[in-house]
Amino acid sequence: MEELKPTERTRLKRLPQRGTFERESIYSILDEALVCHVGFAYWDQPYVIPTLHVRDGDRLFIHGSAASRMLNTAASELPVCVTVTLIDGLVLARSAFHHSVNYRSVMILGNGGRVDHRETKLGVLRALVEKIAPGRWRHTRAPSDKELAATMVLQLPITEASAKVRTGPAMDDEEDYALPHWAGVVPLRFVAGSPVIDPRMTPGATTPEHVLALAESFALRAGHR
Amino acid sequence: MEELKPTERTRLKRLPQRGTFERESIYSILDEALVCHVGFAYWDQPYVIPTLHVRDGDRLFIHGSAASRMLNTAASELPVCVTVTLIDGLVLARSAFHHSVNYRSVMILGNGGRVDHRETKLGVLRALVEKIAPGRWRHTRAPSDKELAATMVLQLPITEASAKVRTGPAMDDEEDYALPHWAGVVPLRFVAGSPVIDPRMTPGATTPEHVLALAESFALRAGHR
Repeated sequence: MEELKPTERTRLKRLPQRGTFERESIYSILDEALVCHVGFAYWDQPYVIPTLHVRDGDRLFIHGSAASRMLNTAASELPVCVTVTLIDGLVLARSAFHHSVNYRSVMILGNGGRVDHRETKLGVLRALVEKIAPGRWRHTRAPSDKELAATMVLQLPITEASAKVRTGPAMDDEEDYALPHWAGVVPLRFVAGSPVIDPRMTPGATTPEHVLALAESFALRAGHR
Repeated sequence: MEELKPTERTRLKRLPQRGTFERESIYSILDEALVCHVGFAYWDQPYVIPTLHVRDGDRLFIHGSAASRMLNTAASELPVCVTVTLIDGLVLARSAFHHSVNYRSVMILGNGGRVDHRETKLGVLRALVEKIAPGRWRHTRAPSDKELAATMVLQLPITEASAKVRTGPAMDDEEDYALPHWAGVVPLRFVAGSPVIDPRMTPGATTPEHVLALAESFALRAGHR
């Protein structure tokens, strides 16, 4: 499996067995996560903002408003860090100390750049809408030129990145396994509820298939670990 | 309701109606979120790492390993940003452009400091274990001095902070409401599955009440919006 090259900045100093540089693992975590956290520094102050992202090949695209001071800062070819985290379960150990959370996360380091090409921006918007709800794009009014201009898209090459994954039961100290305390994992996952129709829709309007399919797809996306 | 003072750095430039400085809103979002994202800069490179947090009054405590280079950097009285984000739903609009996500997020800016006081660290570990699973602490082996020394706790005063909340249906352009496209919200929430017993537990061991109650509490914690 192809691996990214670890760097001094992405190599795990602690618990290196949790780290991976495999593109396949990194990409699947990025694709499953709906929201990423973008970190950038403005003067000396770091900021972390949540936003939507979508991956296309070895590039990550981040979506925001052209009016966002923060995204404009991040787009100025400055170093950024994009992190996504999926929570898979609560890890209950015999010892308080070894309580933990099962998770999968990815950190990408790099310099962000603004996407100005109209067709690329359109493609990113389309991919974002399809990520929110697969099959949705053809059931929407397409973006106008004005809307495309009001959308800012940031791109980041996925070259310096790593994934960190914790799975399975607690790792208690050997002598603690004799204790009577219950230990195990409580799996957590994201599920979708029943669609809530917009109050300005005609009452009784039929909910289309692609919307009904969303709940199902969410259960599938979030596999128990 | 008491409000935090907005600053030049926390005041929303865009969509200010989504922002709030009410302590109560900020605290409830921080308390519901299991994981936060900590941003800090190391030389010129920002880093964003996910970790567990717990709030006590107007202080946020972040948990990590004493061996973590990153947390050590963040604890050196340097500016940090801690962001938590809860995802509440997928917002399907008539226009592609107005697709969105319902969420609640909090951003805290400030200078982190390391907690060295033994009893405070013990209290934070206890609060973290109780946050992962309410009622859990008395069913665990308490931390040893060695474990407390290996735990790093970072504290951050919640003084410069803001919450950002998006709820409800899409805000389509007025002329788009005549379009036939289905619009609405697909609610998302975190749910807990059945507890998976540790493979090194006695087979058939009874799952205690506080573990069984976890699934129930998760459904309650994550209210549909």
